[in-house]
Amino acid sequence: MSRIYNFSAGPATLPEAVLKQAQEELLDWHGAGMSVMEMSHRGKEFMSIAEQAETDLREIMAIPENYKVLFLQGGASSQFAMVPLNLMGRTGKADYINTGSWSKKAIAEARRYGEVNVIADTSSDFRAPAEEALRFSTDAAYVHYTPNETIQGVAFPYVPDTGDIPLVADMSSIILSRPMDVSRFGIIYAGAQKNIGPAGLTLVIIREDLIGHAPQSCPAMMNYKIHADADSMYNTPPTYAWYLAGLVFQWLKSNGGLEAMAIVNERKAAALYAAIDDLDFYANPVDPACRSRMNVPFTLADAGLDAKFVEEAAQAGLKTLKGHRSVGGMRASIYNAMPEAGVQALIAFMEDFEKANA
Amino acid sequence: MSRIYNFSAGPATLPEAVLKQAQEELLDWHGAGMSVMEMSHRGKEFMSIAEQAETDLREIMAIPENYKVLFLQGGASSQFAMVPLNLMGRTGKADYINTGSWSKKAIAEARRYGEVNVIADTSSDFRAPAEEALRFSTDAAYVHYTPNETIQGVAFPYVPDTGDIPLVADMSSIILSRPMDVSRFGIIYAGAQKNIGPAGLTLVIIREDLIGHAPQSCPAMMNYKIHADADSMYNTPPTYAWYLAGLVFQWLKSNGGLEAMAIVNERKAAALYAAIDDLDFYANPVDPACRSRMNVPFTLADAGLDAKFVEEAAQAGLKTLKGHRSVGGMRASIYNAMPEAGVQALIAFMEDFEKANA
Repeated sequence: MSRIYNFSAGPATLPEAVLKQAQEELLDWHGAGMSVMEMSHRGKEFMSIAEQAETDLREIMAIPENYKVLFLQGGASSQFAMVPLNLMGRTGKADYINTGSWSKKAIAEARRYGEVNVIADTSSDFRAPAEEALRFSTDAAYVHYTPNETIQGVAFPYVPDTGDIPLVADMSSIILSRPMDVSRFGIIYAGAQKNIGPAGLTLVIIREDLIGHAPQSCPAMMNYKIHADADSMYNTPPTYAWYLAGLVFQWLKSNGGLEAMAIVNERKAAALYAAIDDLDFYANPVDPACRSRMNVPFTLADAGLDAKFVEEAAQAGLKTLKGHRSVGGMRASIYNAMPEAGVQALIAFMEDFEKANA
Repeated sequence: MSRIYNFSAGPATLPEAVLKQAQEELLDWHGAGMSVMEMSHRGKEFMSIAEQAETDLREIMAIPENYKVLFLQGGASSQFAMVPLNLMGRTGKADYINTGSWSKKAIAEARRYGEVNVIADTSSDFRAPAEEALRFSTDAAYVHYTPNETIQGVAFPYVPDTGDIPLVADMSSIILSRPMDVSRFGIIYAGAQKNIGPAGLTLVIIREDLIGHAPQSCPAMMNYKIHADADSMYNTPPTYAWYLAGLVFQWLKSNGGLEAMAIVNERKAAALYAAIDDLDFYANPVDPACRSRMNVPFTLADAGLDAKFVEEAAQAGLKTLKGHRSVGGMRASIYNAMPEAGVQALIAFMEDFEKANA
């Protein structure tokens, strides 16, 4: 077996140690005589897995006690609906910041449920808005933003200060990549398939006072209160994905937590951006102050060589580097589980490719 | 390692051959150098897995060409909302048959979206309504029923003939257990965690003319048309669960398909019900004509011995037999993946337990 370096934006590479543990206990978890996949979600074995995962996540992220952690299904796309369905009712309006493809999807979905004020739009500019340029509506029920745009590779270098207005963040591609002050947020949500675990699980971290405001017309499965009251077991949760997320949380703890991740992630991103900037053959379109440490899009000087780059990189064991069609070129997603050796291998390949093709 | 017999109602036991294959290729699928969990859902590897799974399911179930197959998230509980959200608009009304706990949940959810006519209610009777007693409303947008009530262990011995009114069936605990004429149904849906695969995946088989009727206010993630147009990849699907479902479909094919499953399932159920009926110590409350072949609830003559039965059965390698609190006693779920040897072991244990305790 030969594991390659997988730069997929999501579903994305997972820590090899986590996969090996999952493999070892796949048919028999801790002597239970069954796979985690086969366990009743209400049995004592899975309950212990579920509770340990939440305990570990709370520790890793230092989640305050007045926040609930929900393990749901449906991805960020379901949260695009659940956030307005649950929160917009107070004023019928919400502020959104548009910084790219995922912001736009959140905005389009929110418009089904009320008035959306796009208070800043830098979605074509490969940057976040300047902090001092933000003006929040006094009657906004909440402010929504995307701290890291997975497709554009644009990250906010700051957390917006919305005062008493709850701040809602789609952290799908940035959660767990560094320490965050959870108390700055009303809701943090994230699809699991980047830094948490396999696709099919969605984390929601929600301040308790924001729970319980959905109208009667809200589908039960989209009502935060129903999930919170049932400890994420209103219906059968995605148990195996929950278990794998728990293994990732344990891997994070045994590798120094988010402080350690932040240091390594910064080092990986700095090395890759330095290569892009130093080599004449590559370019990154993002405002340097807003460059993502997780998703690094880059273009070749000759776009006609894109397919060749992707193909030869794959042959060299560097896979899933093709960029999103809306940006073009390449994209290297370098989440927590991407080893530094993978980034170094990519840089070495880029240097060689430039020499051979420039 | 010692695998036990797991009678959980769901998540439930999976074929050991499927788990072993998943274990073997967990870190490296077919030489791709990555786990299926790590694959981009839009990459050629996962696309091939997804397409093969659908092809196999269509073959196994003989799904007509004018039906779409959707691989979604959210469980049957999400379908409880999606069915009325997408279908009720035509008349604002729908007929529901109430046969037990899951029917009731579907009815309660549907009432958020329009007028629900409960045209038959046998939910306290441990039986399905008589076929000739059913009268459908002429203005029902659809008729919803639960062919197999997982908790009560009640199964319909017939498929209701609703004429031109689309028939919608929650087949979570009966799908793939025997051949079904899909053309009798407008929508078939099923949570995966019984006969399909791990929790977190939901199958929807929908006749094409029923797609495209959701109102603008319907959340995108609850709109069948959005998922159908995107071939279930509107957002990141639960890729690993999809892959495992595909392995189960291949296992079904190599074990004779649904005809073979039906024969074995009938044999397993007949043996277990015969034991319950023949032994003085056990009873099943269900009308014999409506007994489920998948979920077999039974009570002990002395309910004070319930906990002892569960504990000693577990020690004998027969796990998750405790009944649902709304019915009491025991419940043995004997889905496709439960070997006949597991049912025989349970029967032998029941005989021994009676001898020791009667």
